[in-house]
Formats: sequence, structure tokens, C-alpha cells
Amino acid sequence: MAHAMRNYMEDVVEHTLKLILPDLDVCKCEICQMDMMAYALNHLPPKYVVTPEGELYSKLAELVQQSEVDAEVALIEAAKVVSKNPRHNRKKG
Amino acid sequence: MAHAMRNYMEDVVEHTLKLILPDLDVCKCEICQMDMMAYALNHLPPKYVVTPEGELYSKLAELVQQSEVDAEVALIEAAKVVSKNPRHNRKKG
Repeated sequence: MAHAMRNYMEDVVEHTLKLILPDLDVCKCEICQMDMMAYALNHLPPKYVVTPEGELYSKLAELVQQSEVDAEVALIEAAKVVSKNPRHNRKKG
Repeated sequence: MAHAMRNYMEDVVEHTLKLILPDLDVCKCEICQMDMMAYALNHLPPKYVVTPEGELYSKLAELVQQSEVDAEVALIEAAKVVSKNPRHNRKKG
């Protein structure tokens, strides 16, 4: 049976960003969102888990509950950093 | 243009495990290898980078050079932990 390895903190950060993005005064384009997630993930403890391929990590909900507040703090910091120096191009005016 | 986000420490750990696996006194099955990588990655600082889809992170070689020693230390520790309590089933044994 094949297995897959994944950092489930990615799911926590993605879930949390969706919740708080409307309230963040930051550009919401794909690059800015990904740069914010990358910044946050680089400032949060990773949570790699190996599961049988296709199977979801059974304790994901618990992890979200434990780490959501830390993820929010990291994302708010990320929004400040990214909005000071956004990488998206300015063509859209 | 679509973008992709990835923890390039995964590449460092995978590269380093390939180098040192022959010298490690540990089971080399898929599960044990992935459990060792997950353990090591959970004990190394993540390095998430956002790049245009399909493009490789230009500083990967530099990152490997910087982090290879840390990855080796983490993997040697991982091998001890995993070999004490391997998750693979014993049927093949």
C-alpha cells in the first residue's frame, strides 16, 4: 500500500487564511495569498504525518483547533510583510 | 500565471536520506523511510518558497549546501526513533 507524507500545518494555514482574509487589509491576488501562507508556514512548527495514500490525517480537526490561533497570528504578521513589498506585478493598475 | 508553494526542506531531507541510507542500520521499507523523513522535517526549520508552476527554486543547491548537515543530524535521530518502533507490519519478516 502506497503512503503519502504531508505537512498538515498547510491545511491549518489555508483554512485560517480563508476565515480571516476578508478582514485583512491586503491584496487578495493568488501570489499575495501564497506568499502570506509561505511566510506563515515558515514561522510555524511543521506537522508532517505519513498516511496511506488518499487517507486523510484522522487528527486534522484536532490540529486545526490547537493551531488555529497561532496560524492567525502568523498570517496577520505575514499580511503586514507581504503588503509592504508585494511581488505581484502592477500591470492591473 | 499559476504559482506553486513548496517546502524545499523536503528536497534537502530526501537528497540527504538517499546519501546516508546505505550506512544507516534501519529498515529501508517505504513506510520507515517516510517516517524518518517526516520525523526529520518536524525537527527542521521549514523553507517554503512560492515559484511559478513548474519552475524549480533557483537557490535549491545553496539550500542543500546550507542545510545538509542539519538534515543528516535530524535523520540519524529519526532512524533511532523509527527503528525502535517501526510501523511497517511484520508479515513480510
